[in-house]
Amino acid sequence: MAVYTEVGDEDLVRFAAEYDIGEFLSCKGIAEGIENSNFTLNTSTGNFILTLYEKRVDAKDLPFFLGLMDHLDAAGIPCPTPVHGRDGEALRQLCGRPAAIFTFLSGMWPRRNTPEHAAELGRAMAEMHLAGADFPMTRANGLSLESWRPLLAQSGDRVDEVTPGLAKELNGELDALEENWPEGLPGGVIHADLFPDNVFFRDGRLVGMIDFYFACTDMFAYDLGICLNAWCFEPDRSFNITKARRLLTAYRKVRDFSEAELTALPLLARGAAMRFLLTRLYDWLYTPDDALVTRKDPLEYLIKLRFHREITSPAEYGLE
Amino acid sequence: MAVYTEVGDEDLVRFAAEYDIGEFLSCKGIAEGIENSNFTLNTSTGNFILTLYEKRVDAKDLPFFLGLMDHLDAAGIPCPTPVHGRDGEALRQLCGRPAAIFTFLSGMWPRRNTPEHAAELGRAMAEMHLAGADFPMTRANGLSLESWRPLLAQSGDRVDEVTPGLAKELNGELDALEENWPEGLPGGVIHADLFPDNVFFRDGRLVGMIDFYFACTDMFAYDLGICLNAWCFEPDRSFNITKARRLLTAYRKVRDFSEAELTALPLLARGAAMRFLLTRLYDWLYTPDDALVTRKDPLEYLIKLRFHREITSPAEYGLE
Repeated sequence: MAVYTEVGDEDLVRFAAEYDIGEFLSCKGIAEGIENSNFTLNTSTGNFILTLYEKRVDAKDLPFFLGLMDHLDAAGIPCPTPVHGRDGEALRQLCGRPAAIFTFLSGMWPRRNTPEHAAELGRAMAEMHLAGADFPMTRANGLSLESWRPLLAQSGDRVDEVTPGLAKELNGELDALEENWPEGLPGGVIHADLFPDNVFFRDGRLVGMIDFYFACTDMFAYDLGICLNAWCFEPDRSFNITKARRLLTAYRKVRDFSEAELTALPLLARGAAMRFLLTRLYDWLYTPDDALVTRKDPLEYLIKLRFHREITSPAEYGLE
Repeated sequence: MAVYTEVGDEDLVRFAAEYDIGEFLSCKGIAEGIENSNFTLNTSTGNFILTLYEKRVDAKDLPFFLGLMDHLDAAGIPCPTPVHGRDGEALRQLCGRPAAIFTFLSGMWPRRNTPEHAAELGRAMAEMHLAGADFPMTRANGLSLESWRPLLAQSGDRVDEVTPGLAKELNGELDALEENWPEGLPGGVIHADLFPDNVFFRDGRLVGMIDFYFACTDMFAYDLGICLNAWCFEPDRSFNITKARRLLTAYRKVRDFSEAELTALPLLARGAAMRFLLTRLYDWLYTPDDALVTRKDPLEYLIKLRFHREITSPAEYGLE
């Protein structure tokens, strides 16, 4: 839950004058998003989301994120669309921070996801990957392979506090990932953070994908690896092969993946597990106890990483 | 900011079946209300507020609060109206807690309040006091005179940590309040917590009063005392006599107060200052540093209490 900046009534009246979306009737901080302050904005023409970008998002990246959402929306991908002001701009300042208004997406994220959710996700992610093909901007993935050793180093000599032997295991993993990380696989814009709480459903249908603030240019199959981890393990940490099969099969119907992508998938999923393990590890060790953010267990991702390390054939992901 | 209970998508689907307000489209936790968990609920017929009552509200009091809001709404007072389910009930269970849905009020609370806001408030409060006259239920004010010595005792021997001599001054004040507390003044339902963040305005007009969870049966003039404290002191803690005059004059146009009420007003305002001083004092001393709630300075209310102690005539509140 996070609302870092309070937006006052007078601030909002001034801000409203820049837009053509009716009279601003109310604005309430919502417990959504960790990086930004978010508000539901109710105007005489409907509901919107107001986002204020806090320090954790680099302002230089905002044109990429907003441009991407504009682009995906134009291609029919269900994502928040930036509302452009009377001057044509979507990004402006409010309370000293970069701010933008977005269309409101209905739907709720699934607390208990099913194979049907996974299939919907696979289809929608493939459509998003295809729709991003002609998006002209690029943004390097700041949380990929090159960042992992420095990230691990940031956790310093406290890594083994989480579980004995963790530092050694992660260093060995990084050796393997660096040695085998694939090159030349199909890529483009990926979401890179498509966890269940970023995907809205209504009556079992996917109706929205939100939070594009980790989106970047990288291999498509890496996005699949992230989703295998985020959607296909049960609360008891067992792998649900049915969900994986439905996710990958639905994806492949929209954008077929090559043999090379399929072969690389276990390694990419290991890398994806490493990425979330490392950021969680740092947060686990160094987030103050009084922070508003809930710390997530890094060991959940160690178990996922080990699972993918043992994969020897696509059949273990449910594919023929 | 507070959302203590997370409401899942499946919980909400089951809950929606009890109501006749359209398809539930989204539900987002909002940073509003300290006692409860609140959500903006968007359905195919419009926006609503969903409230889950957490431990700090006594479930026995809920029929009073909800009944009062129903009653005031029927009398044209702008307050949240409980939405009754298909079975006629407004109060039911969700996620193991008492829960209710309310109409959505537009407007924003004024961060910088003006004499015009004070006048609007005075008028609306008087209308609310009159509208409550034929409300059949009663609820004792659990935070009035009798509660103050026990409340002070709860802060124990740490009171002087806030400022030296505070315990002595407060004990002397309690002596004076107990000796002089008026009886027999006109009374009925009061809001008892009508701070600026509980009053919504739109284009300078009062369009909503919320958060009736301290409402109780007490002297009307005590509600005025609370509002003199909450609305008529500036950020530098000076008293703004113009705001007080506008508040009291606008109130009196709707419900004239007696000479006895006017005479008692300084003492009631002292008591109102004592009430908020004491709860803030306890929270200041005993709220854990990692709590989600922002602690408020109890000394702000000591200054207000002292101000009212020196009042010798209604002219000092701006009245003739």
